[in-house]
Amino acid sequence: MLTIFDWYNGPYPARVRIAVQELNLLDQVRFVSVDLWKGEHKKPEFLAKNYSGTLPVLQIEDGTYIAECTAITMYLDSLGPTPLLTGVTPRDKGVIHMMNKRVEIEFLDAISVYFHHATPGLGPDVEHYQNREWGLRMRDKALRGAHYFNEVLKAQPYVAGDTFSMADIALIGGFVFANIVKLEIPAELTALHTWHARMLERRSVQNWETISNPVSASV
Amino acid sequence: MLTIFDWYNGPYPARVRIAVQELNLLDQVRFVSVDLWKGEHKKPEFLAKNYSGTLPVLQIEDGTYIAECTAITMYLDSLGPTPLLTGVTPRDKGVIHMMNKRVEIEFLDAISVYFHHATPGLGPDVEHYQNREWGLRMRDKALRGAHYFNEVLKAQPYVAGDTFSMADIALIGGFVFANIVKLEIPAELTALHTWHARMLERRSVQNWETISNPVSASV
Ligand SMILES: N[C@@H](CCC(=O)N[C@@H](CS)C(=O)NCC(=O)O)C(=O)O
Ligand SMILES: N[C@@H](CCC(=O)N[C@@H](CS)C(=O)NCC(=O)O)C(=O)O
Repeated sequence: MLTIFDWYNGPYPARVRIAVQELNLLDQVRFVSVDLWKGEHKKPEFLAKNYSGTLPVLQIEDGTYIAECTAITMYLDSLGPTPLLTGVTPRDKGVIHMMNKRVEIEFLDAISVYFHHATPGLGPDVEHYQNREWGLRMRDKALRGAHYFNEVLKAQPYVAGDTFSMADIALIGGFVFANIVKLEIPAELTALHTWHARMLERRSVQNWETISNPVSASV
Repeated sequence: MLTIFDWYNGPYPARVRIAVQELNLLDQVRFVSVDLWKGEHKKPEFLAKNYSGTLPVLQIEDGTYIAECTAITMYLDSLGPTPLLTGVTPRDKGVIHMMNKRVEIEFLDAISVYFHHATPGLGPDVEHYQNREWGLRMRDKALRGAHYFNEVLKAQPYVAGDTFSMADIALIGGFVFANIVKLEIPAELTALHTWHARMLERRSVQNWETISNPVSASV
């Protein structure tokens, strides 16, 4: 059995929940809630699992904790006979990892910084330091990123080329976060919106919020 | 032939130059200089290669550009019969990717933000916006990160466990950057310094600055 420590509607947890379903691993996973709004992810018990104090974290059978969405996805995608989300050839691996990281840098992580620094974020008990000016810069960076990914998706059906990959999942995570912080993705970015509508047709992208079995909310 | 666009003594270029040597690929690579100090990496010709405007970038035989150190390392490490830097088993892949990313978030990237925001960085012609307070926060974060990695290296010989990996290379990149910005890694972090001294015994870590053949400095 694998354990995923996460929070049911977080944008980064969404990435791993979508990957789990795309890889048909749902029956091998149990979910444990870590309440972001209560700051449970910043408590010593949780920091011992993940120094960075972020969700999600995967615990594998031998007890090892694996944090970071990309690392968790690498682990899960390596369990099967052939990778489905992270590339098979050297070229595809390289391009998928590049685009996945580019989505983080230019969109998803930028929205996250905006949320934590230029909005109330998780509230005064969790957000002990905010740098509003930096947060607003990151919001503008994310909007530029949206324009860039719109251009990418004018030229190809998926973020990293001709097939669905973890880079698409990362961008879906960005849309989840944009929705939470009410950051509007301009309607004129039609290739991006068309891609997103296509992503929403995937079952994994429809029901990730509700897949966690009723769990103990303790870390 | 592979082409690497980089700058001879940059901390991120160092990561790929070390990987190239660890993988014995030096004779398959040519280097093209992109002058960071002249801001060549922010010019439209280069941004067409890498939207994020950072070095290094790898161009492979079919013309594809691969940016991001981790993605480039994934590509290079997949060329051989078995991965040497990025893990073979699902567990090792997961842990190496996690630690590699953790080095970036908690140390290397934090030092980079400090450099670009709370020091003169690449100079006024390149640094059009600085957020000094954020830069100083990131310096403090990097110093906390150094303490964390010292604990890690008390318990195991390499950043991701028992074998050398790209996570070590990322941390070496952090030391390169710390040296450039004169950020002192406290002497009491002896496990970290002992690890670093061991890393400096590797040929790849000694001569990465000088491996680039004389090249045209144009992008
Ligand atoms: N680099 C991490 C980022 C994860 C992340 O930021 N997760 C959010 C949850 S959606 C979080 O834990 N935020 C809490 C905080 O930063 O206080 C990853 O890829 O897993
Ligand atoms: N995430 C990138 C970061 C690369 C990076 O920041 N490279 C430095 C060179 S050492 C750079 O291009 N800095 C220029 C700038 O940010 O203006 C990677 O892993 O490759």
